[in-house]
Amino acid sequence: MKEITARRSIRKFKEQPVGDDMILQLLESARLAPSGSNTQPWHFIVVKSEAAKKRLAEVSHRQKWMENAPVHIVCVADIRCRIGGDPVSLDETSPQFELKQIIRDTAIAVEHIVLEAENLGLGTCWVAWFEQKDIRPVLNIPEDKFVVAILAVGYADEQPKARLRKKLDSIVHYETW
Amino acid sequence: MKEITARRSIRKFKEQPVGDDMILQLLESARLAPSGSNTQPWHFIVVKSEAAKKRLAEVSHRQKWMENAPVHIVCVADIRCRIGGDPVSLDETSPQFELKQIIRDTAIAVEHIVLEAENLGLGTCWVAWFEQKDIRPVLNIPEDKFVVAILAVGYADEQPKARLRKKLDSIVHYETW
Repeated sequence: MKEITARRSIRKFKEQPVGDDMILQLLESARLAPSGSNTQPWHFIVVKSEAAKKRLAEVSHRQKWMENAPVHIVCVADIRCRIGGDPVSLDETSPQFELKQIIRDTAIAVEHIVLEAENLGLGTCWVAWFEQKDIRPVLNIPEDKFVVAILAVGYADEQPKARLRKKLDSIVHYETW
Repeated sequence: MKEITARRSIRKFKEQPVGDDMILQLLESARLAPSGSNTQPWHFIVVKSEAAKKRLAEVSHRQKWMENAPVHIVCVADIRCRIGGDPVSLDETSPQFELKQIIRDTAIAVEHIVLEAENLGLGTCWVAWFEQKDIRPVLNIPEDKFVVAILAVGYADEQPKARLRKKLDSIVHYETW
């Protein structure tokens, strides 16, 4: 698939804005993703305001390049799709199996956006270097949600080479480990 | 993207085997996936033997349909890409942040296989209803690995309708939660 082979992480973007119709198409690709028991534990916050993007870049260990992406899509996993009841506050070392399940499922949906963006001629970069306690207040995200990624989105203004990958024979096994 | 809109979870497969060239193309699509700090924490075990597929179906709460998939690709996350040192034994309620990171990254790679399979005319189904303690012994998987999914792969012998999804306006927010 050309979207898989051509995709690169893009950290330099043109000023050209991303149309709302394209953003909707990206979100639609996430909406269609598969998830365990069809729980669809994902939420997406579309951020275009300069002030909010600046704060998101700051809590992502001051990755200044993020500010130049015309759009951030903040991708959030909601454990309430799986557990109800008592208050729960999630962070990096929470042990719940359900948290692992919703991170898995939200990652699937995020990667749908990444590949759909490639298909539309847009560049993206996954950002996940932040702490829950820092990022949640920026967008008023409740404590029972877990921010899986900020996806920076825009028209690429760079053409990075493919990064090195492990060879197939170091990651593939046959019939047993 | 047609792969995203046309994909369905397939649980009924034709007897027709899947060629090794196609399996390699699936694995190659996973190999190219992005991952945090390019750690590539994924391993894939290609299982075709009837006996092993039967055991995998058994530990997946006796989902008999799995046995009829010509191939199972068992998708494993390796925490050793992120932490070394002391022995570590992972299970469903392990708290490590690194475990969440490798599950996220492996899920990305698994979904690459799913979409590439769709592109090749193959059907797949994510299976993740098993416990680490049950599945690991089947394929001799070490305790410091975490099995993210069994992907059942083959030629579809059913055409399921699209399953219901939440509406966009219930999962999308603008500028803030």
